[in-house]
Amino acid sequence: MKLLSDASEYALRAVIWLAQRPPSPQKVRDIAEETCAAPGYLIKILQSLTKAGILSAQRGINGGFTLVRDASDLSVWEVIDAVDPIERIRQCPLGLKTHGDTLCPMHHRIDQAMATVEATLRESTIEELLDVPGFPQALCEAAEQP
Amino acid sequence: MKLLSDASEYALRAVIWLAQRPPSPQKVRDIAEETCAAPGYLIKILQSLTKAGILSAQRGINGGFTLVRDASDLSVWEVIDAVDPIERIRQCPLGLKTHGDTLCPMHHRIDQAMATVEATLRESTIEELLDVPGFPQALCEAAEQP
Repeated sequence: MKLLSDASEYALRAVIWLAQRPPSPQKVRDIAEETCAAPGYLIKILQSLTKAGILSAQRGINGGFTLVRDASDLSVWEVIDAVDPIERIRQCPLGLKTHGDTLCPMHHRIDQAMATVEATLRESTIEELLDVPGFPQALCEAAEQP
Repeated sequence: MKLLSDASEYALRAVIWLAQRPPSPQKVRDIAEETCAAPGYLIKILQSLTKAGILSAQRGINGGFTLVRDASDLSVWEVIDAVDPIERIRQCPLGLKTHGDTLCPMHHRIDQAMATVEATLRESTIEELLDVPGFPQALCEAAEQP
């Protein structure tokens, strides 16, 4: 059981890096380098974040991706949900007809655990994950030691 | 992001069914039928639960799997951990040397969310997931309507 998928990991790091840059388009190549990501993989993540209204994309020679949300008002949950949607259990995952919309105690308990994850990550903002004194940055070593 | 893998789902249902049977060996075929599982897949799950000391396995014509833990003293966490080990973040998942044993704020926050999942599921016993009045059972429809 792993809470953080690779997609979520790279989405969070891209957003964290963009939040520390001026609000102008940043090239995929640069974002990839600063977050230790493969550009071909990262582009899909950035497109999903754009679709969710977290980034804007600009084509052309001076194009790139820009963070359009305020880091203090953007939750960790929203970033993860944009690339690896969080599955709460609303109905019997087995589709058992007699269960209908009522969860059995097992699925109910697992969904309660998911609810605690949702609450924790909805309360966490991207701003809280930026440079924190005494902690390493969530980016690359190359980026930390220019 | 999904908290409950297929392996965890079937492990929990097998344990829930066994907890409601007399403590004698139950055949894989019967457990599979009562929990809507494919026998070939289920056997691996049952073997993992046996390795973790939650079930005992007995070979032979009257063989099968027996729950050897008390449902009131067996946590949901333990059952899941036996088949789909829960990954807390102890070190930088990227292996960044400069991070060492100190998590960046991002991984620290995700690990905090995992800690809430761990606490919730460690406090939940299998007994609490058994037949609860007003709720459907976590088993098959065939088993519910003989």
